[in-house]
Amino acid sequence: MGKDKFALGIDFGTESGRAVVVRVRDGKILASNVVLYPDGVIDEKLPTGPKLEPDWALQNPLDYLTMVEKAVPKALKAAGVKGEDVIGIGTDFTASSPLPSKADGTPLMALAQYRKQPHAWVKLWKHHAAQPEANRINEIGRERNEEFIRIYGGKYSSEWFFSKLLQVADEAPAIYDAMDRFIEAADWIVWQLTGEEKRNTCTAGYKAMWVKGEGFPTKDFYRALHPRMENVIDEKIGHTFHPLGAKAGGLTAEWAKKTSLREGTPISIGNVDAHVAVPACTVVEPGSLVMIMGTSICHMLLGTSRQMVEGMCGTVEDGIVPGLWGFEAGQSAVGDIFAWFFEHGVPDYIHQQARKQKKPFAAVLEKRAAALKPGESGLLALDWWNGNRSILVDVDLTGTMVGMTLATRAEEIYRTLIEATAFGTRTIIEAFESKGIKVEHLVACGGLPERNRLLMQIYADVTGRDIKLADPLQTCSALGSAMHGAVAAGAAGGGYDSIFDAAKHMARVQKLVYKPRKEAREIYSQIFKEYTALHDYFGRGANDVMKRLKAMKRCSQ
Amino acid sequence: MGKDKFALGIDFGTESGRAVVVRVRDGKILASNVVLYPDGVIDEKLPTGPKLEPDWALQNPLDYLTMVEKAVPKALKAAGVKGEDVIGIGTDFTASSPLPSKADGTPLMALAQYRKQPHAWVKLWKHHAAQPEANRINEIGRERNEEFIRIYGGKYSSEWFFSKLLQVADEAPAIYDAMDRFIEAADWIVWQLTGEEKRNTCTAGYKAMWVKGEGFPTKDFYRALHPRMENVIDEKIGHTFHPLGAKAGGLTAEWAKKTSLREGTPISIGNVDAHVAVPACTVVEPGSLVMIMGTSICHMLLGTSRQMVEGMCGTVEDGIVPGLWGFEAGQSAVGDIFAWFFEHGVPDYIHQQARKQKKPFAAVLEKRAAALKPGESGLLALDWWNGNRSILVDVDLTGTMVGMTLATRAEEIYRTLIEATAFGTRTIIEAFESKGIKVEHLVACGGLPERNRLLMQIYADVTGRDIKLADPLQTCSALGSAMHGAVAAGAAGGGYDSIFDAAKHMARVQKLVYKPRKEAREIYSQIFKEYTALHDYFGRGANDVMKRLKAMKRCSQ
Repeated sequence: MGKDKFALGIDFGTESGRAVVVRVRDGKILASNVVLYPDGVIDEKLPTGPKLEPDWALQNPLDYLTMVEKAVPKALKAAGVKGEDVIGIGTDFTASSPLPSKADGTPLMALAQYRKQPHAWVKLWKHHAAQPEANRINEIGRERNEEFIRIYGGKYSSEWFFSKLLQVADEAPAIYDAMDRFIEAADWIVWQLTGEEKRNTCTAGYKAMWVKGEGFPTKDFYRALHPRMENVIDEKIGHTFHPLGAKAGGLTAEWAKKTSLREGTPISIGNVDAHVAVPACTVVEPGSLVMIMGTSICHMLLGTSRQMVEGMCGTVEDGIVPGLWGFEAGQSAVGDIFAWFFEHGVPDYIHQQARKQKKPFAAVLEKRAAALKPGESGLLALDWWNGNRSILVDVDLTGTMVGMTLATRAEEIYRTLIEATAFGTRTIIEAFESKGIKVEHLVACGGLPERNRLLMQIYADVTGRDIKLADPLQTCSALGSAMHGAVAAGAAGGGYDSIFDAAKHMARVQKLVYKPRKEAREIYSQIFKEYTALHDYFGRGANDVMKRLKAMKRCSQ
Repeated sequence: MGKDKFALGIDFGTESGRAVVVRVRDGKILASNVVLYPDGVIDEKLPTGPKLEPDWALQNPLDYLTMVEKAVPKALKAAGVKGEDVIGIGTDFTASSPLPSKADGTPLMALAQYRKQPHAWVKLWKHHAAQPEANRINEIGRERNEEFIRIYGGKYSSEWFFSKLLQVADEAPAIYDAMDRFIEAADWIVWQLTGEEKRNTCTAGYKAMWVKGEGFPTKDFYRALHPRMENVIDEKIGHTFHPLGAKAGGLTAEWAKKTSLREGTPISIGNVDAHVAVPACTVVEPGSLVMIMGTSICHMLLGTSRQMVEGMCGTVEDGIVPGLWGFEAGQSAVGDIFAWFFEHGVPDYIHQQARKQKKPFAAVLEKRAAALKPGESGLLALDWWNGNRSILVDVDLTGTMVGMTLATRAEEIYRTLIEATAFGTRTIIEAFESKGIKVEHLVACGGLPERNRLLMQIYADVTGRDIKLADPLQTCSALGSAMHGAVAAGAAGGGYDSIFDAAKHMARVQKLVYKPRKEAREIYSQIFKEYTALHDYFGRGANDVMKRLKAMKRCSQ
């Protein structure tokens, strides 16, 4: 055996980016370095001055470059790894986070005449100001019976690629005309590092209406959206997309120098944070649902055939690993609901007990909640504090709780919120299974599983399935990127020839497995029936009280 | 004009009794004295040792005598009034709070052989252990199409007279056989003070199935309830009932000595705390709804004809004032819900602000809630934390809240709880009006209106009606009793010939009137439609999720 070889994974998050150095033979993470983006999330005013409207969220693309330049050398140093021993680089990004650029890749915001124009910057995934455009896309898409409506489970999101591009065309035609390319930051960063514009199939399929073997909707559709957009694919996007794990190119001399890596180091095609995590969770076959659990949950599943599942975020061939259909679903608030409760719902007696026992109040709350039996609280909630992504795709739905009495205590409410999010996941699982897509067990990663044993046990009990935990839990996207870097290098280059091989050697799960308990599972199945009845009553039009209350709320402001 | 004359009012509450000395000519309260019952509410074990089952609540009738003996002389002394200047005495009581006694009025619990028998004591109004008996009464009553089922809005309560008596017959036949009388404490206390057993029409009508001009259900009915009870009316209750405000008799020599009052001082027929408060709130005609607002709300209204209104606690001719129909309705938790929220739902930032501003946290919460506009929270609740009395009469209903988002704050939840209880009151008002019983404005008394300006304004806005406040707010039952004492004396005895005259001179409202604001009223009318839709969905059988969750809760315990 020769000397150890390493792959570099770079994970571009919302507030910061992370570089990890991973040993190719066994996936061991030797070092990790996080760099905050200097301009962070830009949602009040541009660094150049102008104020933003509500619901805007931008980023500065130059921050991504700064992050790479700082984090990569530090991670290498901390790992004690020389640049020449890095055989491949993979990246993953938030999505859809597109930006307008010139033909040479220069972001419009980097040109003097555009730097005060909000539409010249990156529209971050959580930019929500393109809702009118999303509505128009859905209306026209449904009228024309476009394929993408089915692929996206019935609705195209305001967060996605063409909603954001249409907003530029609507509000800033000069920017629309000035851009030569409109491109996902996931692809733009690869372009910067390799000098070649090569776009990935994942964001194209999940966010931009592209279908393998079929391409995009017709010019008629885009003209119907906006006269300027008739030729948008030819003019600003292109027709060629590259599969995940393929080599995009080699590291340029300039970037080799900046990062102390070898010029020409293979770099894989751009990828998405949630999707790249799947093989890092050991999942490269159907039957295992990956849950990336944090402020929200992203659910990723592989299937052997094309299926339209209600409320999915997308259904894309080769969208996660080659040769399989990748399904993506999501819950729009999970950890966020608990954070809300910690801030707004925890009464004094919990804080007092925490002070007395010198423990964090969340630990006190969890312990008290864990002492309750399933069904003991008599409470039931709908987990819609931030709307419902899957399966209803409706941002105007809101949270609900039923069953309070004068004896209801804070830990009962907390446990009920956890249970509600677990019922949300079970609803998604049942939507998959109703289309014959098997979900045999669950694999969790992200920040939430690490701290919350009660939550994980409740998820096992509610879903009736074993839950494994990825190892590592919190850096699985970065690990997944490194794995794709190793695949870009190929076996001949010291890596692997496929993501399946890479997963076999580089990915693992922890020994700890959460297993459903029979009695709890039965009680939760009864309560889940009640959840489903309320879910359908409030969510499917029988009583649109939530929407009317929201409309009144908007009127009163 | 001669020397001022005075009336004495004695209000027997749940934890204590209060004696007030009132000037007859203008109703001015000169002094008030409260005495706690030595044994208080007996709900865990008898003072004589034996433990009680869950849901029991008893009292010691001898405590009532102790209270009179202590409080009356103190109140007279504090008022600087001599016993000889007291022209009449009135009393009011919680109801239904019955006890078994011998033919001479001796409570069974005062006899050595019965003192360790729980069934020998007073069953306090909130004794809830006779639910199986109430169920049997309702079942048999409905089968036989008995009049009382209609009078009580469709359901006879476990808190009432015959449920409690039937429980004695079921569980303690020896006590049942040993009692010569089963009598409301309201009547028993008058019997003690005058030496004459004279029962009142109010408790008979509201709690004991008695109908003016018709009497009780037949012997067949009582035999169907329990073979022992066939002749219960003849044997233990009697057929004669006396109207409110009539003179029951004169104070005995023994009690005159104990209280330093004049022997023979006229004493009015027994009355009920909520009912006696109505004329003390100036209300002796139809059109004004009296709300006695505290932990719960009791709603009292006068009408000119017999009407069966959904979910009423009772509909009784002469039940409040002579010549009119008295309607009683109720909400089972109001102040109790706010107390629950103060204990279980107020987060740290409210307490922190309170400490910083050196204010009670409830004041901080109210101020923040008052700054919100109607509809601004986007929240809606059903006020069923302790079930629903009127109009659904269902103890198994539970609290619900809809509309939470990640931006929902504590003061929004608090305001929503207040609004929910106001919607509950509006539901009761609409039930009255649907039967042609007018509700033109509201008069509030009790502990809640005094501290809660926001609450009172919301009630005005939600109901669309002016709300006046009784003066005094919190001792209106005792004042009402004194007024009835003055009526027992009659004009010839220095008092008044009718409660109408007494109300004209002795009762008043405050200058402060809460008036509905047009814009708020309109928004609340919209939200009330949503409240009604959820009220009917959860409360009328479309989805019995609350009952099923409660059943699961019971199973898990």
